[in-house]
Amino acid sequence: MAAYGDADGTRAAVRELLTTYNDLNGATVEELDHEPSPLEFMRSVARNTPFVVRQGAASWKSHQKWTPDYLKDKLAGQRVNVAITPHGNADAPTFSPCHGSTVIAKPHEEEQAFDEFLDYVTTQELKQGSQSAEVRYAQTQNDNFRNEYISLFADAQSDIPFARIALQKEAEAINLWIGNSCSVTCLHRDPMENIYVQVLGRKHFILLPPLFHPCVNEKMMQPATYTRTGGVLTLEVDEDEERVPLATWDPDKAEREATEFSHLAKAVRVTLDPGDMLYLPAMWYHKVKQSSNEEGCVVAMNFWYDMDYSGPFYPSTTFIRNLGVSNQK
Amino acid sequence: MAAYGDADGTRAAVRELLTTYNDLNGATVEELDHEPSPLEFMRSVARNTPFVVRQGAASWKSHQKWTPDYLKDKLAGQRVNVAITPHGNADAPTFSPCHGSTVIAKPHEEEQAFDEFLDYVTTQELKQGSQSAEVRYAQTQNDNFRNEYISLFADAQSDIPFARIALQKEAEAINLWIGNSCSVTCLHRDPMENIYVQVLGRKHFILLPPLFHPCVNEKMMQPATYTRTGGVLTLEVDEDEERVPLATWDPDKAEREATEFSHLAKAVRVTLDPGDMLYLPAMWYHKVKQSSNEEGCVVAMNFWYDMDYSGPFYPSTTFIRNLGVSNQK
Repeated sequence: MAAYGDADGTRAAVRELLTTYNDLNGATVEELDHEPSPLEFMRSVARNTPFVVRQGAASWKSHQKWTPDYLKDKLAGQRVNVAITPHGNADAPTFSPCHGSTVIAKPHEEEQAFDEFLDYVTTQELKQGSQSAEVRYAQTQNDNFRNEYISLFADAQSDIPFARIALQKEAEAINLWIGNSCSVTCLHRDPMENIYVQVLGRKHFILLPPLFHPCVNEKMMQPATYTRTGGVLTLEVDEDEERVPLATWDPDKAEREATEFSHLAKAVRVTLDPGDMLYLPAMWYHKVKQSSNEEGCVVAMNFWYDMDYSGPFYPSTTFIRNLGVSNQK
Repeated sequence: MAAYGDADGTRAAVRELLTTYNDLNGATVEELDHEPSPLEFMRSVARNTPFVVRQGAASWKSHQKWTPDYLKDKLAGQRVNVAITPHGNADAPTFSPCHGSTVIAKPHEEEQAFDEFLDYVTTQELKQGSQSAEVRYAQTQNDNFRNEYISLFADAQSDIPFARIALQKEAEAINLWIGNSCSVTCLHRDPMENIYVQVLGRKHFILLPPLFHPCVNEKMMQPATYTRTGGVLTLEVDEDEERVPLATWDPDKAEREATEFSHLAKAVRVTLDPGDMLYLPAMWYHKVKQSSNEEGCVVAMNFWYDMDYSGPFYPSTTFIRNLGVSNQK
């Protein structure tokens, strides 16, 4: 047994936690060639392990019909919320020269005409030299597919039947994501069971299971928000907001911001092609990069179901965070 | 956040773990009036939460036919393994005067003619003053229902269909338990999904979820075994065996052997009547007492399915044990 309660004993227990998890679980995503039954899905929920259904949404109208022109036609005359950042890293740890420290940089948000937004996205992707301009991403995560994008909603399944039946709940939010390869979502986690459906372009997921909190070097950070001032995006600290925890370790730059446990993190990598469907279990860390299709955009949707807070999963995940061992060097 | 890695920070995190679990989970067992479907069962497995199916096995032949005479008739001429202890506490922490310390006391085991064994059990229960004699319990837990008790097996379901379908595995062991109210099984846990079926008499379960390891004051103990020497049971230390962990806190004597966390343990109590079925999830601590029926015996069976070691459940349960906080006073 570990020495009781001292830092060395705790660190030894954390190392054993991570190596035990690695020994008992593969670092690959299960591949299915058809949707699971509710019972099969529930087994994956019980194990909190991801799977991908190759071409699971290939029969959806969205997969068959959507092109930039089709989308612009359906949304003609409409304005949508667009997240704007200088370099494509929304909600990422960012050094603020004014504040003199690293903050969590939230995007500037603007309403834009949909056709202008999408033309900007595709032009930036396809035209040489335009990658250095500001990056625009429709990514509100507020059930936008059933609100500002409702005119497209009939092209998708209205829910994921195997998830609704297994989890006994409706989707809490259905989100549409439209952007290009300049946008990267940094490592974070959500208290949601997540079904992700790729429509245009590809998404490259890097996944880490919830127990790997000690590896991601979570730090408390001051929120800040980009604002457009005279045509320039500047980062302004949200003085009234409380600091929030954010993972600072990036599996793609594993030497930087590493904790003494980061080398034990076996990241799981999976790429979604158009028509693929991913089950991303609750509380899994994920970093998401994307590649545009030949028309210069990336479009995906996701279905969020509230996670179940009963049983040992949520308290033990929170316990590992509360031990706070990630900051031990 | 907690202070990183010191004993006070760890203890604060453990307190929050236990109170979070209590806040999110009731201290009662869900009651069903019919067997769950495989999907319904899988939801309970995912949550690691118990349920009881009242009269779930009432249609089984065992429930309708078994009496002491019927059992003796079916097992006429057969010898069975019997566990014998002076006071009915097999595998319990027991002070050994010779060894000068508390050991884990394993029962003496003997082959006995079944009819003599059962007569002993029922007579001890029903005859005033005989409770002080040695206690006998058929409880081998080695798949005995499909071995020494195979002649009774056709009276039970050969498995639990909802569990086999959900877990995608056959029962690893099916055990028969025959004894009287003198036998008590002390608090312990098994790495098994367990379906418990009551046939004669009643069982009184006290349950604690796996995360409550910090409450049960687990200690490493030397194994010892009762041996019959000249008609007397004496406890002999098993010198060649390694010490094993054993819970020493008893929810029925909550003031003794308590840790600083034991008062946070909300024990779940449930009594099984004949015909009832209990799902006892993997790694739940359980203490089991029993009451005889009017014929002086208690008979039950249980179906053990290997637990799933993948996902976060097993590593995080082991992590909490390895932190070893139960011995912090």
